[in-house]
Amino acid sequence: MSRPPQAPHPIAYNYLVPNLRGVETLVSLLESHGTPVTANKTDQAPISSTDDPNRLGSENPIPKSSQNTTEISFFAAATETFSKKNTNCSIQESLDRCKPILAIAKDKGMQARGYISVALGCPYEGPDVDPHKVAEMTATLLEMGCDEVSVADTTGMGTAPRTQRLLKTLKEAGIQNEDIALHFHDTYGQALVNTVVGLEHGIRTFDSSVGGLGGCPFSKGATGNVSTEDLLHLLHSLGLQTGVSLEKMAEIGAWISRELGRQNDSRAGKATLARKQA
Amino acid sequence: MSRPPQAPHPIAYNYLVPNLRGVETLVSLLESHGTPVTANKTDQAPISSTDDPNRLGSENPIPKSSQNTTEISFFAAATETFSKKNTNCSIQESLDRCKPILAIAKDKGMQARGYISVALGCPYEGPDVDPHKVAEMTATLLEMGCDEVSVADTTGMGTAPRTQRLLKTLKEAGIQNEDIALHFHDTYGQALVNTVVGLEHGIRTFDSSVGGLGGCPFSKGATGNVSTEDLLHLLHSLGLQTGVSLEKMAEIGAWISRELGRQNDSRAGKATLARKQA
Repeated sequence: MSRPPQAPHPIAYNYLVPNLRGVETLVSLLESHGTPVTANKTDQAPISSTDDPNRLGSENPIPKSSQNTTEISFFAAATETFSKKNTNCSIQESLDRCKPILAIAKDKGMQARGYISVALGCPYEGPDVDPHKVAEMTATLLEMGCDEVSVADTTGMGTAPRTQRLLKTLKEAGIQNEDIALHFHDTYGQALVNTVVGLEHGIRTFDSSVGGLGGCPFSKGATGNVSTEDLLHLLHSLGLQTGVSLEKMAEIGAWISRELGRQNDSRAGKATLARKQA
Repeated sequence: MSRPPQAPHPIAYNYLVPNLRGVETLVSLLESHGTPVTANKTDQAPISSTDDPNRLGSENPIPKSSQNTTEISFFAAATETFSKKNTNCSIQESLDRCKPILAIAKDKGMQARGYISVALGCPYEGPDVDPHKVAEMTATLLEMGCDEVSVADTTGMGTAPRTQRLLKTLKEAGIQNEDIALHFHDTYGQALVNTVVGLEHGIRTFDSSVGGLGGCPFSKGATGNVSTEDLLHLLHSLGLQTGVSLEKMAEIGAWISRELGRQNDSRAGKATLARKQA
């Protein structure tokens, strides 16, 4: 495998742990390799607005002195049917299972991130997922000790009006914008429109994947996350600072797509490279 | 060639005429085949909002009794370099050449549509195209007798802030929203975000191509227009009525992509069909 472009800053490694055994295995693997497991929330690169120079890292969001850190993630789903099909348990059971995982994360000083899948549309129950259920689950996960909850439009069914309604419901439930991230899939091409709705609401953390990698075996026709390159192009065009180079990210997207033998699903990535080569 | 899904309503056929000879050839061809050349603006399907039931065709935008009509289109470019490279003449010369074309269109009762290329970014002169130049050209084309001017982001470089500034400049120049259309390419993935800016500004006519067909040989890495399916998904999600079925359009997109042996570039189209087949 050829060598990808290297990150000039420390980064947070995120490990998806499916269950208690998963986090135990992760910890023992990391410790046996002598990898530090400490976390430091400021290592992440939040988006900062040019209008808000006091916000963390407006000029240089990632402190150069910090080290790579470790974060664990686990999933719950916003509908009973998806929960059953995807994790073979009810929503309540899946939340209960998070508790011992979180206890280990806290004990080891790792960041912990909860995901709520199908928050804006379920392949089994349809687009009208109850936003109050999502808000209740988000509050529960935060109360359990999650450092952040990523509210995920797994199927890409999310629309601007329903994204707006969900964010309003989360706010009314007392959830702080700083405690949530939005996670969009561009399956129907609406991810950036929904991102703008999130930005206008005050959300500043958005998930994405380079080259639009990913997908979901439980959602027919699912594509990967919105591509990091397309998201960066949007954020930069709005005057937001991310600390991330679109051009370098486009190179990584082309590299990983080539390595995996899959199509590069980033429009901005492909266009940026084509323009550079011209 | 297999037969595509058929339109249940009459449609407007649009012919791009590169020059005076082009329109003369078109007229003689149409007349020799006995094709009526009359135009009727209400044959087009404008977007209507559910908040505005009195707007043309809110329930059924296309009068069933009307016939297919004919529209001609011609291009001018917003930058001198693109004008020279694309049409081998200055902007002023290209506008002058529109006059006799428009005279024939008016004489034959055809709709006439002007395009202003590279209005939000030029492959030669960069992203900062002068919005005042675009406004001046739009006014000139309308004064010459164009029924509509399509302001085109040929390169896909358009961003939300620059789209907003351009629309503000057009308004300040006295251009009515009803006289303009917006024409986006999704090259950098920003087409729907820019469409939302247009909608918020009051624009109700947007160009698109089924399956994201198209491209531009003069713009390196250019992709086709924003796909009709993605645009429809956005418009319908916002409660706007188009009179167009997303599902049928998705079938047409899959059909034409197959026939042309090219990739279907519509995310909503592919996802709609995948979901239907599931």
